[in-house]
Amino acid sequence: MTPIPFDPYLKDCPSRSVLDRVADRWTVLVVGALADGPQRFTALAQRVGGVSQKMLTQTLRGLERDGLVRRTVHAEVPPRVEYDLTDAGRDALEPLRALERWTLDHSAAVLAARETYDAAHAPAL
Amino acid sequence: MTPIPFDPYLKDCPSRSVLDRVADRWTVLVVGALADGPQRFTALAQRVGGVSQKMLTQTLRGLERDGLVRRTVHAEVPPRVEYDLTDAGRDALEPLRALERWTLDHSAAVLAARETYDAAHAPAL
Repeated sequence: MTPIPFDPYLKDCPSRSVLDRVADRWTVLVVGALADGPQRFTALAQRVGGVSQKMLTQTLRGLERDGLVRRTVHAEVPPRVEYDLTDAGRDALEPLRALERWTLDHSAAVLAARETYDAAHAPAL
Repeated sequence: MTPIPFDPYLKDCPSRSVLDRVADRWTVLVVGALADGPQRFTALAQRVGGVSQKMLTQTLRGLERDGLVRRTVHAEVPPRVEYDLTDAGRDALEPLRALERWTLDHSAAVLAARETYDAAHAPAL
């Protein structure tokens, strides 16, 4: 039996929840921050400016659950916890970095487009 | 004066709102659906399964405001409205498609990882 192929354009395809994991601002930034190697929670929280403790915890747990991030507890006193990309997480780096790159390359144009749009759609006084 | 470079890792950098536009499930699907050429609202709503009218309207308006999508009203009776990618939108296709491709390639593994994780983290009875 051939498995039904995944198709995120279909409402009930489970791949859509996988797309949600990567098509996410915090995933882009957290996975990007882990590109250089294992990091502790506090270092990540500093690198990803403005992320709340709760949001970072939630993002890391989601990435761990989905197999993109590995959480390692080092047997020390006190125990040291580190987060690292798995192979699947490393595979995701390329498209996520491409998205980051597009963002850097187009931010000025997008912000200008917004101003133009807002001026054209401002309510008449 | 050199402009300050964009950096989405900084809390207050405006590029973060640009990242939000592309790191979004509906952007991936709507921009992907527009890859083959101009489309009407109803065709898009059919292609992107399960998207609500409200969410599609909101996504298209956001993409138009950010200069990724062009909305054209053809002077016919009744007027025909079409949505199309701009050059910036077409530039975004590549990273967005790469994200879609990653999703397809890794969905099975991610879903399996979720099962393993949930089994290991199930509350003891």
